Amino acid sequence: MLTDSQLSQIRAIVGAENVHGGPAELIAYSYDGTFEQHPPDVAVTPASTEEVAAVMRFAYQEEIPVVTRGAGTNLSGGTIPLTGGIVLALTRMNRIIEIDHVNTCAVVEAGVVNGEFQARVESEGLFYPPDPSSLAQSTLGGNVACCAGGPRCLKYGVTKDYVLGMTVVLSSGEVLEWGGKLFKNVTGYNLAQLFIGSEGTLGVVTRIILRLLPLPRVRNTAVAFFPRLDDAAAAVVGVMGAGILPATLEIMDQATINVVEQYVRIGLPTDVEALLLLEQDGNDQDAVDREVARMVEVCRKHGASDVRMAKDAAERNELWRARRSISGALGRYRPSKLGEDIVVPRGQIPAVVRRIREIGQEFGLAIPVFGHAGDGNLHPNILFDFRVPGELERVQGAAAAIFRAAIALGGTLTGEHGVGSLKKEFLEEAVGPLAVQIMRDIKAALDPKGLLNQGKMFPSGSGPAMEDFLTALPTLQGITPG
Amino acid sequence: MLTDSQLSQIRAIVGAENVHGGPAELIAYSYDGTFEQHPPDVAVTPASTEEVAAVMRFAYQEEIPVVTRGAGTNLSGGTIPLTGGIVLALTRMNRIIEIDHVNTCAVVEAGVVNGEFQARVESEGLFYPPDPSSLAQSTLGGNVACCAGGPRCLKYGVTKDYVLGMTVVLSSGEVLEWGGKLFKNVTGYNLAQLFIGSEGTLGVVTRIILRLLPLPRVRNTAVAFFPRLDDAAAAVVGVMGAGILPATLEIMDQATINVVEQYVRIGLPTDVEALLLLEQDGNDQDAVDREVARMVEVCRKHGASDVRMAKDAAERNELWRARRSISGALGRYRPSKLGEDIVVPRGQIPAVVRRIREIGQEFGLAIPVFGHAGDGNLHPNILFDFRVPGELERVQGAAAAIFRAAIALGGTLTGEHGVGSLKKEFLEEAVGPLAVQIMRDIKAALDPKGLLNQGKMFPSGSGPAMEDFLTALPTLQGITPG
Repeated sequence: MLTDSQLSQIRAIVGAENVHGGPAELIAYSYDGTFEQHPPDVAVTPASTEEVAAVMRFAYQEEIPVVTRGAGTNLSGGTIPLTGGIVLALTRMNRIIEIDHVNTCAVVEAGVVNGEFQARVESEGLFYPPDPSSLAQSTLGGNVACCAGGPRCLKYGVTKDYVLGMTVVLSSGEVLEWGGKLFKNVTGYNLAQLFIGSEGTLGVVTRIILRLLPLPRVRNTAVAFFPRLDDAAAAVVGVMGAGILPATLEIMDQATINVVEQYVRIGLPTDVEALLLLEQDGNDQDAVDREVARMVEVCRKHGASDVRMAKDAAERNELWRARRSISGALGRYRPSKLGEDIVVPRGQIPAVVRRIREIGQEFGLAIPVFGHAGDGNLHPNILFDFRVPGELERVQGAAAAIFRAAIALGGTLTGEHGVGSLKKEFLEEAVGPLAVQIMRDIKAALDPKGLLNQGKMFPSGSGPAMEDFLTALPTLQGITPG
Repeated sequence: MLTDSQLSQIRAIVGAENVHGGPAELIAYSYDGTFEQHPPDVAVTPASTEEVAAVMRFAYQEEIPVVTRGAGTNLSGGTIPLTGGIVLALTRMNRIIEIDHVNTCAVVEAGVVNGEFQARVESEGLFYPPDPSSLAQSTLGGNVACCAGGPRCLKYGVTKDYVLGMTVVLSSGEVLEWGGKLFKNVTGYNLAQLFIGSEGTLGVVTRIILRLLPLPRVRNTAVAFFPRLDDAAAAVVGVMGAGILPATLEIMDQATINVVEQYVRIGLPTDVEALLLLEQDGNDQDAVDREVARMVEVCRKHGASDVRMAKDAAERNELWRARRSISGALGRYRPSKLGEDIVVPRGQIPAVVRRIREIGQEFGLAIPVFGHAGDGNLHPNILFDFRVPGELERVQGAAAAIFRAAIALGGTLTGEHGVGSLKKEFLEEAVGPLAVQIMRDIKAALDPKGLLNQGKMFPSGSGPAMEDFLTALPTLQGITPG
């Protein structure tokens, strides 16, 4: 608990209207896209890097834990203030400071919403590829903290490939400026890459310089249905083997197709084991159409039973409907879901999807799988009802089994969601004790008092992380899961 | 100096034939692509990660400095054993372990030569974009240590964008395995990105997993000549503004054009202030040709006096001749050169080129400028004769003035060569004292005894780095500068 004196000092920094300590406000800042929940002592909405720095200097002096937060859409428990303290919500820092056409980059504050940023740069003929599913809500600062990806990232790369510079407030309150409007930079260690994906454990990113691309003028899309999962996976390899790097190469397994079809009724064949959504973009309609036709040909050759290629934008939108409907469909099927985020070598997709099917049967849970097939980044979604006694324990067991299946196949825990609190007990299994020790050393160097995002990423040694779910349950009563 | 006992223990690890201590061998391992020179006490050529680890464990125990080295082509003094000790030359570790078509990646040892790797993957229909000018000699391990770039990096990114995993021997001799055949990975901090560009100061990278792309099937090239430098720079911006991301967008200034033309006599107009070399690649010849034609149109619109577009591969090679001849031409013009590597925001290219022209006049030195215009990454080459008394001091002054000009324009010291010893005294000016302190903390965490690549990257506080040139001079007598 913060003292009245501490609270009034924080009010003096950011203004009383930006210090939020009422019961409703503390609940609002207590959860993210998972089931964990813990209120902060206070939530603070600073307006500038200078205010963030002043809050951090004060927190450092008083040894108050701090959790930075954007829109709180994350799926790892990463923004939950597990030990209370201050939540620094950067949502007011939402200015697009500059779109620079000469240097094809943008300067933004951390609280800018990804989708709003995309719309703005596209309206100016520019392109920012990273497109997490949360883009309508999630912030660019949060995207940096998690190294967000999305369907376009096979061809275009993830958030880390677009950060040219950043302003970071360290736990001490010191302000680090790194990089610039510079497309190449090897002047010393690449500190920006250390903060990207560090989930708010090393510093508070307040301002970002993002590389932009020219906006591709045209695109085209196809969907291919495969009676056999192995054939779909072989087609993914076949597309790349045909010399094509598609803008999108998404997969949905049979369980996902069925759940989506029950929801949207768009005539998806429910007897196929997988579908692939393929897209190409570029500047030349004929060339793009030819590449999509070539991908369709590869799919047919690899056993696709049906292939649909869009003839215009309306048909393209229709083909995307199934992919876009997944989240809503899953929510309708069961009231709760745990969206996982494993990565495997692309060639191991059939093996891991089959293993997940077995795990679902073993634990008596529906686990539809979809994701970024080109990247080997899959989202097994464990569907359940947290009100049913015993179900959450089975979810816990299934999630652990999925993590271990991915690791056993040469994969890892997370491709774009982060470790947060939910996967932290598996970190050492995934990266080994030496890597964890190096990460701890880096954390100690940058956050010597250990104030930033306590209880995240690093294993507590207290056993499987899903226990956190169970302890969080009582406070969840009465709140609808996200 | 190592003791006989120490040397015999190293021989026991790698075999006597791989421990090199003769006078000629010590000279061979005493220099790189700069003018600095200092012999090691011994050079060791290990055959495996295990042998590297055993050597490092021994060096750690005995507190012997270690400098890792690939082909020694670097242009920053980065591989010179300034404090003696062991040079670990990884040139025997030159196996391409695997080209994996299913997962479009390769597993290589650090000593594989970039150009040999490129030829191999291209023969299998795959593509590894980073193409430093040293590619015929430089190793992929060295490329990782410096985060090498090249002309293709505007469109395709630099070395850091291709590393999926690595094996690193730490200074303690412990072996870190990071990543895998995984296109996305946010499981903990991105340690690979910390080692990339760290110039051998944090660990010894012995094995790398590199992402590959499908090989673009076609390409086309054009050259445009501009009477006015500003117009060439505006054309660079205009090409991107026309929605095109070219595979190559190189610039040569008037001084470079003149030096090249005097050497190769291919009819370059010597009265123009700049030329641009433009290339596009893709899978569709018509689409690629249309984009190159569009770039040509942009150049004409921006004041190009002459534009040549290749009609076939022979013409394409002819257009590249000027670019490829630069290094030889500069060597013929004056016996010595210092190749710099500044980066500025793309829009500042005219300002920095003009400032470099002034600096050349001020110090009485020819400084042709060429480089990667799309990236804002320029290579001012200071031409001189180190045997002429006083000339090296002027080079020192000119280099410092160039660094400061780049920093003043929002740029930095190095885009792809690294800091090494030559630029270390300017590190703090470029990144600020806080960034240097964080870098020192990271260095201390990973190399607590400070054994790896001593005297590199970090400022000594002893003044301008070029002093090193002067102290190196006596040993240089009789050795032809590279």
